[in-house]
Amino acid sequence: MKLKEVGEFGLIDLISENAIVDPTDIIIGIGDDAAAYAPKQGLLELLTTDMLVESVHFDLSKTTFWQLGYKAIAVNLSDIAAMGGKPRHAVISLGLPSEFTVEHVVELYQGMKEIAREFSVNIIGGDTVSSPHGLVINVALVGEVEVAGLLRRSGARVSDLVVVTGTLGDSACGLDLLFNPGWDEADFIWPLLNAHLTPRPQVLLGQKLAGMGATSADDISDGLANEANELARSSGVSLRLYADKLPLSPEIKQAAALMDKHPLHYALYGGEDYQIVFTISPDRFFDLPAGTWPFTVVGDVTDGTGVFLLEADNHITKLEPKGYDHFR
Amino acid sequence: MKLKEVGEFGLIDLISENAIVDPTDIIIGIGDDAAAYAPKQGLLELLTTDMLVESVHFDLSKTTFWQLGYKAIAVNLSDIAAMGGKPRHAVISLGLPSEFTVEHVVELYQGMKEIAREFSVNIIGGDTVSSPHGLVINVALVGEVEVAGLLRRSGARVSDLVVVTGTLGDSACGLDLLFNPGWDEADFIWPLLNAHLTPRPQVLLGQKLAGMGATSADDISDGLANEANELARSSGVSLRLYADKLPLSPEIKQAAALMDKHPLHYALYGGEDYQIVFTISPDRFFDLPAGTWPFTVVGDVTDGTGVFLLEADNHITKLEPKGYDHFR
Repeated sequence: MKLKEVGEFGLIDLISENAIVDPTDIIIGIGDDAAAYAPKQGLLELLTTDMLVESVHFDLSKTTFWQLGYKAIAVNLSDIAAMGGKPRHAVISLGLPSEFTVEHVVELYQGMKEIAREFSVNIIGGDTVSSPHGLVINVALVGEVEVAGLLRRSGARVSDLVVVTGTLGDSACGLDLLFNPGWDEADFIWPLLNAHLTPRPQVLLGQKLAGMGATSADDISDGLANEANELARSSGVSLRLYADKLPLSPEIKQAAALMDKHPLHYALYGGEDYQIVFTISPDRFFDLPAGTWPFTVVGDVTDGTGVFLLEADNHITKLEPKGYDHFR
Repeated sequence: MKLKEVGEFGLIDLISENAIVDPTDIIIGIGDDAAAYAPKQGLLELLTTDMLVESVHFDLSKTTFWQLGYKAIAVNLSDIAAMGGKPRHAVISLGLPSEFTVEHVVELYQGMKEIAREFSVNIIGGDTVSSPHGLVINVALVGEVEVAGLLRRSGARVSDLVVVTGTLGDSACGLDLLFNPGWDEADFIWPLLNAHLTPRPQVLLGQKLAGMGATSADDISDGLANEANELARSSGVSLRLYADKLPLSPEIKQAAALMDKHPLHYALYGGEDYQIVFTISPDRFFDLPAGTWPFTVVGDVTDGTGVFLLEADNHITKLEPKGYDHFR
């Protein structure tokens, strides 16, 4: 059987089989943003890992090493944030092509250390090896969370609101701009490129969500359509999203218009937003002090399965989980 | 500056700079077999990671996927063992070429799960991505150790004995046999090939060493010459090794003779033994029940710096730390 026949998620299902041999203190294993285990009563340690491969995840002609290092840590921080955790310690593996210089690696680590310092994350080890074809970066990150602060994908309840942080699609639009030059003079370009090259994960917000009453959460790494399906499936509910509620930046509207693209396409199917989508009861949500948080209500939770998009003309579309799949 | 000018260890020194931003609970950061931090009083969590890259660390025409999976976990277990820890939880990242099949990946994980089950290690997450050129495997592993059970590289004291577990050089000799066929009918070949392809880390022994009185320890992943220098440097002492004491298997002696190689070369400079070298006072060592452990005294600790090899004819050689360096 070919990988492309089973796909990334089918493969994860296969991998999950018999992976836990001593479940005593496992709270969450394969399949969520990070794994959680409980070394001591009351405190959970979170562990996550992400691999970035040259010419799959990044193009060295389009990013600086500093930006790449920053992003490699950011994507892992986002996984811990979506669990409600405080990121604590990272180990970094690098597979380095022989033509790389020390300066390249130092610059890569400078980007890593900048964001690590910003969020008080220690880089406490790693492995550095040679790679015959292209740069490979792997980050494994440990976080901590009190049991009561843990956010899962599986807690969404019927009549909850669906809420997202920040704006959506900027990163995917920024990626398009990187490979479709000609807009370098436009004001809108920088926020979009930055969203793609140095995403800022919602670490501080993630740690507050459980206390605010969030019932489930996921980081938006593979597009809202994909992550909303993940929440719906894990929680055994259906999610209804309103197209005209999806938060779009002024910049994505300008850029999409000029490139003849639809900004909703980026918002739903573009990847690497590193925002958080969560569910929360209306009571708890409207108790929150207004205007303090970058929250947008984008839908609600209903009985059933799947995710549906309601457009202004009352047209309803079923949203398939078609984020980026590495093997299709 | 080129990578090869600074070398792997020079690069690690560069990377270590400013890597710890919140040292509150860091016990050991970059530079030992695993990192150690203390989430709660009395218990340390250990975190280690290793990356294996196709055609650098393995050749798919010489290993099965099962063996490769087994080994990818084994090398990480060895790092935890050398710290005295009990391995607990692993996260696995795979970079997979498009021509790989599901069966390949399942077989890889079967090897991983076999050794994980053997040592009660949970695989609790990971990342699976595509790789345009060759297979990449990264494992990050968490372990636990009571404070009193922690083994460092830095505790060796003058007049301690230097002790190794098991036999040395078998893995490197097995690697040579893989690439120099013609001995397939010889009885000696299998233990040597197995030592290379499916090394069995000293996990259970590692957890007992601190209680036995070991003052420092390191796993032998890059050859004894290299690891002994690591212990000497970290502890601020000199190590004296006796050539005729180095434990050699009957098989390595046969194979080396037939291939016209010197078995000591494998034992000192060959990599991937995944045995443990440790130091211990003579009093404590001779208190141990005789014959119960696979221990061999190979030298002692003296004042000074560096590692010296004494041969039977009283010839003394300074052993340079020339294990495998990825960038030389």
